[in-house]
Amino acid sequence: MKYIVITFHPDKKRVAVPLGSDILTASVKANIFLASSCGGKGMCGRCKVKILSGEIDSEPTGKISEEEKKNNIFLACRTFAKSNLEVEILPETIMPTRVAPSIFEKGMEIHIPEILKRVFPIHPLTKKYFLRLPKPSLSDSISDIERISRGLKKYNGSICPDMDMPTLRKISRILRESNWEITVILDEDNNKILFVEQGDTSKINYGIAVDVGTTTIVVSIINLNNGETIGTESSFNSQSVYGDDVITRIIYAEKKQGLETLHHLVVSTINELIQNISKNHSITLNNITGIVAAGNMTMMHLLLKIDPSFLRREPYIPSSNTFPSMFAAEIGIKINPSGILWLVGGTASYVGGDITAGVLATGIYKEENTNMLIDIGTNGEIVLGNKNWLLCASASAGPAFEGTGVKNGTRAIEGAIQSFKIEDGQLKVATIGEKTPIGICGSGYIEIISELFKNKIIDRTGKFVVENERIRNCPDVKEFILYKGNGNTKDIVITQIDIENLLRAKAAIFAAIYMLLEKSGILWENIDKIYIAGGFGNFLNIKLAISIGLLPDIPEEKFIFVGNTSLVGAKYALISKEARKITYDIIKNMTYIDLSTEKSYMEEYLGALFIPHTNLEKLSLKK
Amino acid sequence: MKYIVITFHPDKKRVAVPLGSDILTASVKANIFLASSCGGKGMCGRCKVKILSGEIDSEPTGKISEEEKKNNIFLACRTFAKSNLEVEILPETIMPTRVAPSIFEKGMEIHIPEILKRVFPIHPLTKKYFLRLPKPSLSDSISDIERISRGLKKYNGSICPDMDMPTLRKISRILRESNWEITVILDEDNNKILFVEQGDTSKINYGIAVDVGTTTIVVSIINLNNGETIGTESSFNSQSVYGDDVITRIIYAEKKQGLETLHHLVVSTINELIQNISKNHSITLNNITGIVAAGNMTMMHLLLKIDPSFLRREPYIPSSNTFPSMFAAEIGIKINPSGILWLVGGTASYVGGDITAGVLATGIYKEENTNMLIDIGTNGEIVLGNKNWLLCASASAGPAFEGTGVKNGTRAIEGAIQSFKIEDGQLKVATIGEKTPIGICGSGYIEIISELFKNKIIDRTGKFVVENERIRNCPDVKEFILYKGNGNTKDIVITQIDIENLLRAKAAIFAAIYMLLEKSGILWENIDKIYIAGGFGNFLNIKLAISIGLLPDIPEEKFIFVGNTSLVGAKYALISKEARKITYDIIKNMTYIDLSTEKSYMEEYLGALFIPHTNLEKLSLKK
Repeated sequence: MKYIVITFHPDKKRVAVPLGSDILTASVKANIFLASSCGGKGMCGRCKVKILSGEIDSEPTGKISEEEKKNNIFLACRTFAKSNLEVEILPETIMPTRVAPSIFEKGMEIHIPEILKRVFPIHPLTKKYFLRLPKPSLSDSISDIERISRGLKKYNGSICPDMDMPTLRKISRILRESNWEITVILDEDNNKILFVEQGDTSKINYGIAVDVGTTTIVVSIINLNNGETIGTESSFNSQSVYGDDVITRIIYAEKKQGLETLHHLVVSTINELIQNISKNHSITLNNITGIVAAGNMTMMHLLLKIDPSFLRREPYIPSSNTFPSMFAAEIGIKINPSGILWLVGGTASYVGGDITAGVLATGIYKEENTNMLIDIGTNGEIVLGNKNWLLCASASAGPAFEGTGVKNGTRAIEGAIQSFKIEDGQLKVATIGEKTPIGICGSGYIEIISELFKNKIIDRTGKFVVENERIRNCPDVKEFILYKGNGNTKDIVITQIDIENLLRAKAAIFAAIYMLLEKSGILWENIDKIYIAGGFGNFLNIKLAISIGLLPDIPEEKFIFVGNTSLVGAKYALISKEARKITYDIIKNMTYIDLSTEKSYMEEYLGALFIPHTNLEKLSLKK
Repeated sequence: MKYIVITFHPDKKRVAVPLGSDILTASVKANIFLASSCGGKGMCGRCKVKILSGEIDSEPTGKISEEEKKNNIFLACRTFAKSNLEVEILPETIMPTRVAPSIFEKGMEIHIPEILKRVFPIHPLTKKYFLRLPKPSLSDSISDIERISRGLKKYNGSICPDMDMPTLRKISRILRESNWEITVILDEDNNKILFVEQGDTSKINYGIAVDVGTTTIVVSIINLNNGETIGTESSFNSQSVYGDDVITRIIYAEKKQGLETLHHLVVSTINELIQNISKNHSITLNNITGIVAAGNMTMMHLLLKIDPSFLRREPYIPSSNTFPSMFAAEIGIKINPSGILWLVGGTASYVGGDITAGVLATGIYKEENTNMLIDIGTNGEIVLGNKNWLLCASASAGPAFEGTGVKNGTRAIEGAIQSFKIEDGQLKVATIGEKTPIGICGSGYIEIISELFKNKIIDRTGKFVVENERIRNCPDVKEFILYKGNGNTKDIVITQIDIENLLRAKAAIFAAIYMLLEKSGILWENIDKIYIAGGFGNFLNIKLAISIGLLPDIPEEKFIFVGNTSLVGAKYALISKEARKITYDIIKNMTYIDLSTEKSYMEEYLGALFIPHTNLEKLSLKK
């Protein structure tokens, strides 16, 4: 096989790939992550690159304008190298690799309402025990393992802990070199000795809680001795280069080497975050002994390198919805080589461990009152219930509210429009970090649709109904200009198609919410609290979300922003055996409503496509 | 590093080794196993080779005669290659690599008395379940694992079996490709799915029972569906090239790469036996799903590559005396890659899993009557007890009764003198297979000492007391010529030193037997049965063994030859969960008497050095 070299500018990263490789795949090999919603199918038109020199083959595409063609701009996924190449990555094409930690830390650590601060007994996934053992003698000649067992017994009453061979092989030396003073690290749930260290290291024991989102991955580092969160950092899931939503990822995983690639990308992202956060808090990886991950079922399958194909094919079957604990090293996660990984199990193919973690974090499963959890991420999942019953459903809302699948959508990064008002005919645009607008994030879109509707620029179906200097008639679609670019910055717009996409997303979510209500026979007024979780939770303007019919018209104080409940639940599972046990109870007790098999779901969805709804009664207490 | 090539004749095996390597190490690399009792320390004088050409360095040794020197004969362990070499292995130096299977099969499968044929419920280590599963549907959309669980439940009532990642990763494809008809292979004790096969393979499931002896390794292949033994084969433990007894092996293991080498050698021997026996019975390795091994504690440590150093150092501590079940592949044993290895646990550093297996096989642990088990192998272990109590001890008898550490000792192979009589002044020598004598095996030595004593050629202390044409005065020792060699065959003799070694061995064993009697307060007449186990059990003449004081003078019918109880016990553990559980009970209930700490042991030993004993009362019912 002949290899050629591609050099990516501006960073001059070089990579050797087989002749004929596509530029998108080559970029991933070079550790460069391009925006690509469709997973390399040439459909989203986001992975634009400029070919500076070299020979290429490129498939025709409608996603490249005539002007772009003149500038040698091509779609990376549809362009194939025929010689050594020099390629320039356009600024808008590159995927931001890390969200400013402060944004997520704020969401995580400060905005969690008191109601989520639950007290579980500290009984971490992995626990250290310092043992000062009596030396063996002819009259006390039990084996080394029995001696350790006897030492442990007074702490946890356990008999004969299990141990794997690599540890067993080291034990005799460690005991004698440490003069019989050792620290034993136990897998508490399986009564298994993970490893043994000389002397007393029991004061130092850390764990990682990780929310593996389709779009964003967030890790917290936790002191396992007291359950305190030491720090939180997040990053985009670098799998995103192969698609924005789980279906696109699954399709990519079905390609040759696709599963391995996606597995590798998510593990790399997690490892990078762990390395970064450990460094920032001066914690060595060897002192991290356990990790708990929560994510949707597709993310869990990809993390474990399990073929996810059947998750997307009727009747939508996961290989497993709970997973055995394993050595983190077994899937390439870099903590202590004998540290373990535990995954929060899920209920169904589209209600995964992130939702189980959310139910655990919010405590819905144990309340007398009936509460609801709405987790809007790349998908939208809804749970309704109380201590006696739990119903859940998933709305395939698509990632519009995460800023993708819409023309100028962006993630919640600096420069994203997150707020929009029309006052006295004047547009007021506010961005994260008060930077020049680079795009629109989810909460921004909600405000924009609400304002456009309130100002009668769009009608109840979302159609532009006025002529306005802000409305531009492009050849195939109308668009509203939110921000007019100058030479260096581009126009930021919302198109008619964007609005339709966003309304479809809100309709899917609202219809799902309503279906759970119908199924349970519960009325709006019977719901005590609605927990809003997920990436954009904290920036969401509830009033406006109600005004467009994304959320029901019930008293605002019933809505509680809870941020990333997947991460909080993962943390609780990490630090508490009781919490881990509860996750299994939640999975067992939660009934999944498959909306695709519910005839009335389509009706509810169609009704909810309007702003705010065709039937206002459905939104409110008046029902 | 410079390498040179050594060619070993007569088989012309070639091996490249670093310049300066010793010939013994090089021979092991060439897969040639030389006799070497001392483990390469230049002490036993057995590893003689002839240097045909090339340059060597050789250390001076008293083990090579002047004539041998003239013939370019050297000790392989003390001779170092300085150039490419041609080396001839002498016929008497090569270690027989496999005992004729018939000898051991006979011992194993035919000579087992009815009393050992115990009926355990068949509940093998690894069991196959054929499942015809209903296909999933939207109304029955549980995960693949839950579906398998549900299918298994009706067989074994278990919930949620565990599964490791490689299997979990394959499960979705196997289920669908097999049209939901699969065979699940379960680790029954841990409720863990080992692997899954398409279709119904449940009729075919084999296991291996292996006795890992210091000298000999024996394997049986068992049909796990009905518990029947299909075949048995044995081989010398190729570790023997690095020493005859466990202490020499442990010392070798402490050298650089020593543990790895010994581990590799025992695993290779086992693999060779498994491959051979599978081939002979047309069984593919993939259909062997479990293996149970029993052996002394040193053998178990070496098998698992656990440092055995502390077994030989006061206070004699094993790393562990029970071992977790593991993938056989983890230590390199070649059966199904997902098959498991289970080890019979032991009681103490010198009473290992072979003895636990013996107690299991003989059923001592459950009898109302008090019985004794004497297992004479490279060491001698004794168990005394009944269903209420069990005592055990180990006599460091040395390997004299296994034919090593004595001048013309040999293992129980063809040509070994196993019987000896003096009738009317005529010597009657009988060998195994009626071949020309090549040496003397354990049972032969007992008959020789008994006859020499009866004919007053030696006195009660074992000293030659007559002049006789058969007695030769060598420079440093007297020897009795049993067989006069011709030009092609060598003389076979027993020396004064041999006799002393053998008397020390018998004294050590008898003293140990007697100590257990003393400790328990039991009288000879209270013992119902004495089980004689171990390699030479079946060839031993009880009357003669009593006459020299190896065994007590009690009615002959109380002695029962039980052959290789370690193998039988391993087999029972392989096929029965109940038997596996019993091994833990045996270990828990058995009290180890460390003879080295018993003051009176030395007195008993000194008394037992005489033929048959200084105090005849100790031997008999008259006590």
